[in-house]
Amino acid sequence: MAETAVPKRALDPRYRQIRAQSEMLCEPLETEDYVIQSMPDVSPTKWHLAHTSWFFQTFVLPAAGIELPDIEPTYAYLFNSYYNAVGPRHCRPLRGLLSRPTVDQVYAYRHLIDDAMGKLFERGVPEDVMPLIEVGLQHEQQHQELMLTDIKHVFSSNPLDPMYRALPAPDDAKPRALGWCRYDEQVTTIGIDPGSGFAFDNEHPLHRVLIHPFELADRLVTCGEYLEFMDDGGYEQASLWLSEGWATAQSEHWQAPLYWRRAEDGWQLFTLAGVRKVAAHEPVCHLSYFEASAFAEWAGCRLPREAEWELAARGSRIDGNFVEQRRYHPQALRDETLPSNGPLRDVSAGSRPSAPAQMFGDVWEWTMSAYAPYPGYRPLEGALGEYNGKFMCNQFVLRGGSCATPESHIRPTYRNFFPPDARWQFTGLRLARDA
Amino acid sequence: MAETAVPKRALDPRYRQIRAQSEMLCEPLETEDYVIQSMPDVSPTKWHLAHTSWFFQTFVLPAAGIELPDIEPTYAYLFNSYYNAVGPRHCRPLRGLLSRPTVDQVYAYRHLIDDAMGKLFERGVPEDVMPLIEVGLQHEQQHQELMLTDIKHVFSSNPLDPMYRALPAPDDAKPRALGWCRYDEQVTTIGIDPGSGFAFDNEHPLHRVLIHPFELADRLVTCGEYLEFMDDGGYEQASLWLSEGWATAQSEHWQAPLYWRRAEDGWQLFTLAGVRKVAAHEPVCHLSYFEASAFAEWAGCRLPREAEWELAARGSRIDGNFVEQRRYHPQALRDETLPSNGPLRDVSAGSRPSAPAQMFGDVWEWTMSAYAPYPGYRPLEGALGEYNGKFMCNQFVLRGGSCATPESHIRPTYRNFFPPDARWQFTGLRLARDA
Amino acid sequence: MAETAVPKRALDPRYRQIRAQSEMLCEPLETEDYVIQSMPDVSPTKWHLAHTSWFFQTFVLPAAGIELPDIEPTYAYLFNSYYNAVGPRHCRPLRGLLSRPTVDQVYAYRHLIDDAMGKLFERGVPEDVMPLIEVGLQHEQQHQELMLTDIKHVFSSNPLDPMYRALPAPDDAKPRALGWCRYDEQVTTIGIDPGSGFAFDNEHPLHRVLIHPFELADRLVTCGEYLEFMDDGGYEQASLWLSEGWATAQSEHWQAPLYWRRAEDGWQLFTLAGVRKVAAHEPVCHLSYFEASAFAEWAGCRLPREAEWELAARGSRIDGNFVEQRRYHPQALRDETLPSNGPLRDVSAGSRPSAPAQMFGDVWEWTMSAYAPYPGYRPLEGALGEYNGKFMCNQFVLRGGSCATPESHIRPTYRNFFPPDARWQFTGLRLARDA
Amino acid sequence: MAETAVPKRALDPRYRQIRAQSEMLCEPLETEDYVIQSMPDVSPTKWHLAHTSWFFQTFVLPAAGIELPDIEPTYAYLFNSYYNAVGPRHCRPLRGLLSRPTVDQVYAYRHLIDDAMGKLFERGVPEDVMPLIEVGLQHEQQHQELMLTDIKHVFSSNPLDPMYRALPAPDDAKPRALGWCRYDEQVTTIGIDPGSGFAFDNEHPLHRVLIHPFELADRLVTCGEYLEFMDDGGYEQASLWLSEGWATAQSEHWQAPLYWRRAEDGWQLFTLAGVRKVAAHEPVCHLSYFEASAFAEWAGCRLPREAEWELAARGSRIDGNFVEQRRYHPQALRDETLPSNGPLRDVSAGSRPSAPAQMFGDVWEWTMSAYAPYPGYRPLEGALGEYNGKFMCNQFVLRGGSCATPESHIRPTYRNFFPPDARWQFTGLRLARDA
Repeated sequence: MAETAVPKRALDPRYRQIRAQSEMLCEPLETEDYVIQSMPDVSPTKWHLAHTSWFFQTFVLPAAGIELPDIEPTYAYLFNSYYNAVGPRHCRPLRGLLSRPTVDQVYAYRHLIDDAMGKLFERGVPEDVMPLIEVGLQHEQQHQELMLTDIKHVFSSNPLDPMYRALPAPDDAKPRALGWCRYDEQVTTIGIDPGSGFAFDNEHPLHRVLIHPFELADRLVTCGEYLEFMDDGGYEQASLWLSEGWATAQSEHWQAPLYWRRAEDGWQLFTLAGVRKVAAHEPVCHLSYFEASAFAEWAGCRLPREAEWELAARGSRIDGNFVEQRRYHPQALRDETLPSNGPLRDVSAGSRPSAPAQMFGDVWEWTMSAYAPYPGYRPLEGALGEYNGKFMCNQFVLRGGSCATPESHIRPTYRNFFPPDARWQFTGLRLARDA
Repeated sequence: MAETAVPKRALDPRYRQIRAQSEMLCEPLETEDYVIQSMPDVSPTKWHLAHTSWFFQTFVLPAAGIELPDIEPTYAYLFNSYYNAVGPRHCRPLRGLLSRPTVDQVYAYRHLIDDAMGKLFERGVPEDVMPLIEVGLQHEQQHQELMLTDIKHVFSSNPLDPMYRALPAPDDAKPRALGWCRYDEQVTTIGIDPGSGFAFDNEHPLHRVLIHPFELADRLVTCGEYLEFMDDGGYEQASLWLSEGWATAQSEHWQAPLYWRRAEDGWQLFTLAGVRKVAAHEPVCHLSYFEASAFAEWAGCRLPREAEWELAARGSRIDGNFVEQRRYHPQALRDETLPSNGPLRDVSAGSRPSAPAQMFGDVWEWTMSAYAPYPGYRPLEGALGEYNGKFMCNQFVLRGGSCATPESHIRPTYRNFFPPDARWQFTGLRLARDA
Repeated sequence: MAETAVPKRALDPRYRQIRAQSEMLCEPLETEDYVIQSMPDVSPTKWHLAHTSWFFQTFVLPAAGIELPDIEPTYAYLFNSYYNAVGPRHCRPLRGLLSRPTVDQVYAYRHLIDDAMGKLFERGVPEDVMPLIEVGLQHEQQHQELMLTDIKHVFSSNPLDPMYRALPAPDDAKPRALGWCRYDEQVTTIGIDPGSGFAFDNEHPLHRVLIHPFELADRLVTCGEYLEFMDDGGYEQASLWLSEGWATAQSEHWQAPLYWRRAEDGWQLFTLAGVRKVAAHEPVCHLSYFEASAFAEWAGCRLPREAEWELAARGSRIDGNFVEQRRYHPQALRDETLPSNGPLRDVSAGSRPSAPAQMFGDVWEWTMSAYAPYPGYRPLEGALGEYNGKFMCNQFVLRGGSCATPESHIRPTYRNFFPPDARWQFTGLRLARDA
Repeated sequence: MAETAVPKRALDPRYRQIRAQSEMLCEPLETEDYVIQSMPDVSPTKWHLAHTSWFFQTFVLPAAGIELPDIEPTYAYLFNSYYNAVGPRHCRPLRGLLSRPTVDQVYAYRHLIDDAMGKLFERGVPEDVMPLIEVGLQHEQQHQELMLTDIKHVFSSNPLDPMYRALPAPDDAKPRALGWCRYDEQVTTIGIDPGSGFAFDNEHPLHRVLIHPFELADRLVTCGEYLEFMDDGGYEQASLWLSEGWATAQSEHWQAPLYWRRAEDGWQLFTLAGVRKVAAHEPVCHLSYFEASAFAEWAGCRLPREAEWELAARGSRIDGNFVEQRRYHPQALRDETLPSNGPLRDVSAGSRPSAPAQMFGDVWEWTMSAYAPYPGYRPLEGALGEYNGKFMCNQFVLRGGSCATPESHIRPTYRNFFPPDARWQFTGLRLARDA
């Protein structure tokens, strides 16, 4: 095994950094906050901490031949999320009924796993185990984002309006007129290049697609623009909505994005820093696909297709408002932010940018593409094959990451996906139109 | 006000003792245990601790003219249980979504109230406030029982089977044959005698009832007897059941009392001391009215009426297996226990007792009496009028207290009530039959 | 068997008359009307016609040794209502999914049964079979009432507002002030006297009850009085309502009795003769127990207990607005109607009546008595034991019959019962109060 | 208007033929059969007859300036299916609660509309109205298929197993080995050619797509093959299923296709001709997308994409088992049927066909393509814009028509769509795989 082992240094610090980041995100929490499941889609924080450890326990340590420490056997049942192949599991909507293991016990469990992983790094990681560790780390980063969105939902369900962390007042930069970037008809390739590092199986394989000519907005839709839609009766006009979206909006009494609250002097919104006024130039956030689609219809546009988005994103640096910025909220676009998260190539003559801004970070951008396998897609072998493929039904693809995404986690080819009625993620939109 | 004040010593120690008892019951709990609501009927432990304090804050301190300490205003909303008259309230099934106030904050809230009550006791309690304090204490004792039954349900919902407290093995005393106590037709009075101390409004007024001749079993039904019913197909014979009971048993897949689990070598049950074998001679417990009624039908008997039970109970000392015993489970009847919780009058000739045993403590006994107002009943004035009267519909009366009831809380006239499908209380049965 | 047979003439014409009455009630119906089940409590008309025939097929003909005609075997499954003892049955809420058997086939089935019953009458009815026939006829009369209330609900669910039968305009007689009849404390007997003819098992046995002094209103509550309750915020004041009633009223958005509709110029109501204005002096109808209870609370009164009602009813002739009047709606009390459905005994001096009016017919009167077995009650042997006893849970007793009840079907001892949220029967109320 | 009018003869006979066909399909029905809605997706037959007439009343006659006959105004409310733009409508799941209008009244309504349309044909149809008539006729053909699938569901819900029409025994032709037709990578055009006649807006516009190399099965999957899947534990292996599919299969207790019934000697199925044995060589039918997808996974294949299917279908004649054959059930493939519904081009050397059979008729074929707008798609203007576009969410495309589809209604470009859990249509599958 010595010759297949890679230098332990390569993954070790990354493992430690990412695992520590999960715990760092919990620093503002009280013990009680770790326990709550405010709706079936939400998991308690301590469940996230445990499940991400269970992942290494289940998929990495046995494959690496590391003897498992003495772990309560029921954890295998409690902290399995959805992997049928590794045995039965606790019913998801019941995760909030578990006071035990306590938060301390969950941290102890994490550290048992970390110790065992430390032994693995000491010993040297076999080459075939390295991708499993990478999946485990990427997986943990996904749950870091969920920890933030879930605790936001938990806090928003409490009439006391708890605050996660005090944050600076929003930087509601001056408005910028919307511009359009144009793309010609072309056959391009999307998906992941085999030699370009880690990617999930759903980004495979690299394949050719025919792109029809289109234009993409050079920035995200703002709260101010969304308020125009609302003021124009956006939530009252069935003709703007998908049929299922309209039915959902009616039955759920949607009148505004999630977390918006009508106050006497205008709209407020609940953020991880508490309740404050809606800032007109911030990107609108916490929209369902249904709302994003209705807004686009109202604007005489459409949502981008995921291949279109990916084509456009290749021209942008991965730079922006990620979790590392500790804003935990999308931020208004500043003119000076444009170059950094903007075009790498020269801007064409005139004032219009030739590449879109805000492609990464801030909010996940709904695309009009149903989540489906790429041509030639095959899921991973074994239990990890359940990671992505089995969810390719009744979901839509989102692109670009958000203010809750770790910067090192995102890529132009990254495919996130949620059902069209989901609103508790940091989800917004960018307009597109046929050219 | 001085002349109406009564000696502060009278209520003060009782207040302190009962308030301390609530906190003592929480000693075995972890912080996380306080937070969980495992079904809509269950409240989180910290909610009980807060709500019982809210009761003094709302109904006692203002009436006594004590200035309220600085209390988070939202608590009035969060910890109102069901009193429409004092304002809106948080929706009951959402009590488990609240991580805040934390457990520490709830204890701090309790102690603020205790301090204010201490000032009241220092100053002397006005006579018209004394009954309100007494209601507050009786109310807190009711919630002490709920704290135990609720945490039992919470723990039972956790695959880790947490234990509340290690307890001695069951004392499964030798079986005793069932005997019958006979009562002749008579007009008697039931309900509370105005001069006999505290009672809830639903025990008023004292009134005459005509009793038809009947016999009452001299002890509770045991697990062993209930197993006979089960083995005889009790859960498969519709003819034994009320129509609504049969429908419930089918849709809920009832096959045994709540907390019973089928193991390879027989039935086990989950207790506050963990999972163990069913003990044949312990009183059967955690039955719904539907199951109690089906068992009685199977046995060729019926459940007692509440007036019959009250008539019989007047002959018994209030003595038995209450919460003070710290068993938290009904216990088998021992021959030597008979005198203490048995007849006060001489036993008639022969080995048969002339008065029933186990009338108090162990398990609440379902009666066949729907919960209804006594002739001449009037609820209390004001918000406390919502305490009992508005629940007089679709519930059945239970009598006698349980192993989770404080001994000082129970009386022969005490009327507990639950819907016929409720099983999470310590509820069992005693047989009756027409003479 | 010859000596036990009774003269066939005794039951034969009664059988023919009652069976014909069921079909007569269907005369106004179109074929399509027979098929609809507008809510789970409602049965399609053709189901009633078939089920009442199934009753004779199942309980009478085999007991009489009459060879059954050639009947589709599946009917035994489709037309069993709730008798577990005679086999499995079609699920109640699915009765409206059956287009077959057709209406013609159901009539043919009825006539097959009638022919077989005719043979039985020809041959002479054995004495032990006579009570079964009587049960079958009383049962059919119950379903005649249900046919009317069910078709009313079916029609009310249709935006076309179909009319069952054109009827004369309401006779909204002049108002009469409410009077009270007083009854002293007494031990009386209620229930059925063994020698007094047919009664259901739930009216047995005759038994003594202790009555506390009370007063009973001398007439029903009117729509005008109920409108005062509504105008006084009756549907907005939680304090008037039972807790479960308030929850139901909120979740169901109750603002008025069932079938009332707010129009521009006041309240209208849907009747079997179409939509018209509410008539102030007609008895209010289609109330749940919850509404009746809230009204009584608002009026500072209560509902009568069933024993009180029965005591009072013994003084009244069974005379009134029954189905034979073909009004299908309660009617305003006229002064001249008082004697006929009023006191048999002399009226005491002064203008106050000594016995209540409108005790029979018009509307079923909610009592505050939960439906429970009388002391010494035993259900019938065999499958017919399921007729009444198994429903003695979470229902309230109603007395007196309605405008949809056959006159020959009602008695002072008759106990009807419905859950407290039921509103589609002709249900109203009469006030009572402690004396 | 005279010069824009087209010869009335063009559309008139087609109108008469299609309208008559709707009524002809009802010939086997009893009056009661027209009324039933056996689940929310199903509409009563008489509703279909009325709604298709409402379509001409609403969208054609006013546009043509034809004075509307005297029609009950409530019909506009009752028979609007889902067009928000033309006003409020009756709630879909309540369609089965309407006994009125009667079947006779619905036919009378149809004939009023037919008379008015007759006037329009007499007068000459303005050119701009002709497409509206064509939409109305295509719409009516769609409802003809629904009438058959809905009545099948209605009959299947009846324990009497009613038969729609006696039909010849299944022609279970000899098995034929599955072959594969190979297609190379190519850019092709799909969608409708503007000059090629009527098509729905969702088939527009003609556009280029890049096809990856693939193979398509040369025939449908048979019941025998599906039984192999079942026998191999297809319904018990989560790994074969989409996550949402597995959850649905579990909660709905799916063990076989809809309408299959386990009998002592094997599987039977309910057809419009009654219950009979499953025929091994018939195409499997009444599958959800979830089941089709699981089968394909089990077979090591996948479902076709809709562009792949359309590419392949262009080589086939529109010929097959349509509603005109009056079989109302898919039929086994016979060798001699191959040429007619088979390849138009020469078969390549050897026994393998070069083009797939059974592309049209028999069963709708699930594709793996989510129902989405084509590039450049714009819905129709006005209310008819609600016809297709608003349903482009959480549905999958099906192709090829079925044994209940009129032959003149289908095209290679035709896009049908249903949610992935729908099973009551004649839905089956054909395998595909990457080449």
